[in-house]
Amino acid sequence: VNFASDNTAGVPPEMIQALIDANHGFVLGYGNDDWTRRLDDRMNALFGRDVATFLVPTGTAANALALAHITPPWGGVICHQSAHIMTDECGAPEFFGGGIKLIGFPGDDGKLSLATLKQAISQYSARRPHQVNAAALSLTQASESGTIYRPAEIAALCETAHAAGLKVHMDGARFGNALSRLNASAADLTWKAGVDVLSFGATKGGAMAAEAIVFFDPKLAEWMPERRKRGGQLLSKHRFIAAQFEAYLEQDRWLAWARHANQMADRLARRLGEAGIEVVWPVEANLVFAIFPKEIDARLKAAGAAYYARRPSMLPPGVKLPAEAVLARMVTSFATTPEEIERFGDLIQKR
Amino acid sequence: VNFASDNTAGVPPEMIQALIDANHGFVLGYGNDDWTRRLDDRMNALFGRDVATFLVPTGTAANALALAHITPPWGGVICHQSAHIMTDECGAPEFFGGGIKLIGFPGDDGKLSLATLKQAISQYSARRPHQVNAAALSLTQASESGTIYRPAEIAALCETAHAAGLKVHMDGARFGNALSRLNASAADLTWKAGVDVLSFGATKGGAMAAEAIVFFDPKLAEWMPERRKRGGQLLSKHRFIAAQFEAYLEQDRWLAWARHANQMADRLARRLGEAGIEVVWPVEANLVFAIFPKEIDARLKAAGAAYYARRPSMLPPGVKLPAEAVLARMVTSFATTPEEIERFGDLIQKR
Amino acid sequence: VNFASDNTAGVPPEMIQALIDANHGFVLGYGNDDWTRRLDDRMNALFGRDVATFLVPTGTAANALALAHITPPWGGVICHQSAHIMTDECGAPEFFGGGIKLIGFPGDDGKLSLATLKQAISQYSARRPHQVNAAALSLTQASESGTIYRPAEIAALCETAHAAGLKVHMDGARFGNALSRLNASAADLTWKAGVDVLSFGATKGGAMAAEAIVFFDPKLAEWMPERRKRGGQLLSKHRFIAAQFEAYLEQDRWLAWARHANQMADRLARRLGEAGIEVVWPVEANLVFAIFPKEIDARLKAAGAAYYARRPSMLPPGVKLPAEAVLARMVTSFATTPEEIERFGDLIQKR
Amino acid sequence: VNFASDNTAGVPPEMIQALIDANHGFVLGYGNDDWTRRLDDRMNALFGRDVATFLVPTGTAANALALAHITPPWGGVICHQSAHIMTDECGAPEFFGGGIKLIGFPGDDGKLSLATLKQAISQYSARRPHQVNAAALSLTQASESGTIYRPAEIAALCETAHAAGLKVHMDGARFGNALSRLNASAADLTWKAGVDVLSFGATKGGAMAAEAIVFFDPKLAEWMPERRKRGGQLLSKHRFIAAQFEAYLEQDRWLAWARHANQMADRLARRLGEAGIEVVWPVEANLVFAIFPKEIDARLKAAGAAYYARRPSMLPPGVKLPAEAVLARMVTSFATTPEEIERFGDLIQKR
Repeated sequence: VNFASDNTAGVPPEMIQALIDANHGFVLGYGNDDWTRRLDDRMNALFGRDVATFLVPTGTAANALALAHITPPWGGVICHQSAHIMTDECGAPEFFGGGIKLIGFPGDDGKLSLATLKQAISQYSARRPHQVNAAALSLTQASESGTIYRPAEIAALCETAHAAGLKVHMDGARFGNALSRLNASAADLTWKAGVDVLSFGATKGGAMAAEAIVFFDPKLAEWMPERRKRGGQLLSKHRFIAAQFEAYLEQDRWLAWARHANQMADRLARRLGEAGIEVVWPVEANLVFAIFPKEIDARLKAAGAAYYARRPSMLPPGVKLPAEAVLARMVTSFATTPEEIERFGDLIQKR
Repeated sequence: VNFASDNTAGVPPEMIQALIDANHGFVLGYGNDDWTRRLDDRMNALFGRDVATFLVPTGTAANALALAHITPPWGGVICHQSAHIMTDECGAPEFFGGGIKLIGFPGDDGKLSLATLKQAISQYSARRPHQVNAAALSLTQASESGTIYRPAEIAALCETAHAAGLKVHMDGARFGNALSRLNASAADLTWKAGVDVLSFGATKGGAMAAEAIVFFDPKLAEWMPERRKRGGQLLSKHRFIAAQFEAYLEQDRWLAWARHANQMADRLARRLGEAGIEVVWPVEANLVFAIFPKEIDARLKAAGAAYYARRPSMLPPGVKLPAEAVLARMVTSFATTPEEIERFGDLIQKR
Repeated sequence: VNFASDNTAGVPPEMIQALIDANHGFVLGYGNDDWTRRLDDRMNALFGRDVATFLVPTGTAANALALAHITPPWGGVICHQSAHIMTDECGAPEFFGGGIKLIGFPGDDGKLSLATLKQAISQYSARRPHQVNAAALSLTQASESGTIYRPAEIAALCETAHAAGLKVHMDGARFGNALSRLNASAADLTWKAGVDVLSFGATKGGAMAAEAIVFFDPKLAEWMPERRKRGGQLLSKHRFIAAQFEAYLEQDRWLAWARHANQMADRLARRLGEAGIEVVWPVEANLVFAIFPKEIDARLKAAGAAYYARRPSMLPPGVKLPAEAVLARMVTSFATTPEEIERFGDLIQKR
Repeated sequence: VNFASDNTAGVPPEMIQALIDANHGFVLGYGNDDWTRRLDDRMNALFGRDVATFLVPTGTAANALALAHITPPWGGVICHQSAHIMTDECGAPEFFGGGIKLIGFPGDDGKLSLATLKQAISQYSARRPHQVNAAALSLTQASESGTIYRPAEIAALCETAHAAGLKVHMDGARFGNALSRLNASAADLTWKAGVDVLSFGATKGGAMAAEAIVFFDPKLAEWMPERRKRGGQLLSKHRFIAAQFEAYLEQDRWLAWARHANQMADRLARRLGEAGIEVVWPVEANLVFAIFPKEIDARLKAAGAAYYARRPSMLPPGVKLPAEAVLARMVTSFATTPEEIERFGDLIQKR
């Protein structure tokens, strides 16, 4: 039972097969190949418009390169205080952006509210040139709390951001988990709602190491090839990363895999509920947060279950972590099986 | 017939098999896995000492991260003027190093001479704090001209560099090609000769996307995990990059593959000689440079042969590119066949 | 009546005289002059040990260069959330530090508490390499709230910081205001309490444009000359900046000027008290904060009094800014006269 | 006799007087003052169009901030190999520009030729995204060899640069020396010839520490206030730097001072000629280069004359420095007297 992260699973067999299929003959490097060209077309089709796609091997790179491209060095990035860019990338956006400032704000359910955004913009659009200026908004979809921004929420946030001159970035490391839950298209969740650039993750969803930076206005991507190259992020045998992404999108596998992961999370939440343990945030993607009493935590760990404890400071205002308890984050993936969920649930209910 | 680069070949079947073998079960991300641990051990064994190994997906990243780690922002990196870091990485070392300065010097056969190094150090160790200070020496092994530094050459350069306080980096994108040609060990070519950090390439040699930064003094690698992470270069499903490198080193495949590529280069040079075309530089690795008259170039291109023309300015002093001629670079790889060489030779000799 | 900032006053006549006196003959540039050498000696004498002094023309430069020198790019700087480096330098520390992260925390009276520091270190010393690592502590003396850290407070904070491997920076833009208030020496407030590097301000205190970065362990300042030079902060006619600092320190003028400013602040606080207006924070340096009802604010402004409104978010927890009121910051300086204070007080009490 | 640099002189009395005159009353900081506003107007008048002016205290800052503003991080700056930005700023442009690459080329008389520029652009506009892209041209006026670009030369270079998408920067640390020699206006030498941004030096010409970055298209200067601030280059008591520049420009003093310096250089060149010593480059500004036999060098030094030896590699192709000789650079300034020249000449001719 491994709920540590969606990157602890390997890859589905389709991913390996795609690599095998791509391994024929001599092909020019650095993206001058048919796999990459096909993927560009497929991305255009998926989003229903001409986009500019840049593949990179890590999500941190996708976020950092995207943010650096839309934020001048003296710019601030408004984000949720628990956003991955804020807490888990060791300063990558600051580095790639030449010293940009990430400004984290609290927000219910791991999401930024419109009111918070307005206040943030107001605070960081004054006192030029003494203060960093709000230049970008970054939304995490699905959020680090496992919740999802709805298209209307995104649209409202983007409208306010754009009105103040900010560009909007979406960290879609779990974009598939969000999209597969909603009755919406990839376009609805992104450019139609106002998103300017998306970190479109495939690794957590099933790829080996493949993320796409997608600019919805290709003009905004000018010189991005140089930024990616000097970031050490342009793969030479590029067909293999394109092939991974192709296999991911092919036949909507990514949505099927994400839907499965989400269903496993739902099932886990149900089992927790049956055990009298409430989830901390609504389970909308493939993340489940719960407070485990110490003895349950010990029993699970003893049985080999893997998950990470999160800082109590992440809890919603008013929710206190009892002494001797643990805020546990469980992550499901394409590889999670119903049996694992049941076994985990059984372990909990054994008490 | 594709001699455009050693990255136009795909990967040997052993590489795919390694990915398949690694794709079992749940494994912690970010290098906390058995594949990575085994590789660390293997690297120690290969170099005959405890080293600190960091895997990254591109050679540009390996070079840039390594140079940034041994060069302060106000430092200069002494290198050959045709070095990859100087001409083909779009400023990655300058970016990762916070604005370091790469200082290129000419050198016969694509190699820096001891005299040049001494003059460079003398010039860039004066006039503090007005001038950038020589802080690192970077050697390319095999060189961009396809030549090889001998252990004694490396030792002399390193001794001079160290005496002046410089650290030494080796860009070993084609390290296997160099090593397999010489009667020497991996240790002889690196730390025993004084190299401090090696960009150990596997991608050109047969991997899909795998390079290692190897610090021969692990203490020098302090905080390198952070540098790699914030450079967006830490893969989450890390077992797969470790597995590639393991497959590369296993049973000395990397040396066998490199030896094959070198032999194909030798064979190509012989065929060129038979056709009355002299190679520009000694063929010591898997690169062959020759001046093709226009009609031969046209004939080869018409037949679908792929190779790149290089700038005439790269030619040795005194060697002039005739009008209507092309300085051609042919690169062989593990995948090059004798038949390709022969076909290429036949095309040339058809005249 | 100008209380907008301590940089709105010009300079005392002694400062001009120092420039006149320094303007004789030919003198080598870049600090190779007698004025600079004398100042180095004077700094050693002032602090009672050999220090390394670097003069720069702005406080932002002093802070940013100092922080960049003690914090690696992946390091975090723990500071108060209202620190000048956090709010008023447009990202200078982030820029000079290659993307370091400033992490602001709340704290009573504009000061960081020991408990907060401990929690901050604990939070930012875990999860390597995913998270920025606490590398420096920056204390503002006097604080942005006009309060002062006592030697024992500094010592406790520094001890905790050092124990966790952090270096300690002190932003002493108003160092004279702090020192002149306490029965302590410059050494007591800095290295004897554990401070590693001080931004020693003279501009707010009376100089035209002169700040010193003082390293208490000269070994820590290695390569600082290069950092200053490439930061564009090494003045060519350096004798003039050294002469300013010399005039500042000569005959303890800086302390006399600061004491005067502090006394004017005390007097202002008394007048406010007499008018029934309480100051927000203890007046310990030359800053006075008060909440002005709208009509008083209007009356003062109409009479030409200058001061800035500050964000209500700066107020202590529990203190609410009434509607139609203003959080006013009044700053006194060497140039403030008792008459100005009285006139200001009279304007307030006119109601 | 001090010919070491034009920054070894102090300042003319008018400069001190300007500081005295500016030292009255309370004035808002950071450029919100009448001196700065007047200077803005004066700059517009001088250049005959609306310009955007930014004052900074050092020439290195002016160059680095200007270049960073017109060059993206992946851009290359084409310059003469002996340009100050290339050799004397310790990597400041690389630092401020986020890792831009300065690419130095040789050129007769310290100037870049049109042919060289064309070749440079051709070389650095290819191979995207693997190679740094030419983004800016930087011209030094007067050059480091003491020569001057004529308006027509500048125009030709700018036209070629603009046609290829490059912006043009002029390092005018000695702009006054160039302008006062030519029958041309400040506009003729800059925007009318195509220059986009000028580092307009006053320090070498007579100010204490004052340089202006002048954008001829104010739109190009968007966000420059932020860049200057976070570069630590925005002076708080800004009136004093504006006052210096005002005193410099007032009554065309800058041109008179520069003309004097140039005449002293002419006179020195004549005396050298009379002594049978030829100058290395045409004396067009306030720099004189000559090869001194060892005994003359020793005699001058013994008599206390100050000047710097320059690297022989700076000499024109074909000119060899004899053994035991010195390439001497003599710099004159507003403060140089005819008596000094004569005394220097007498010392030389004593042989």
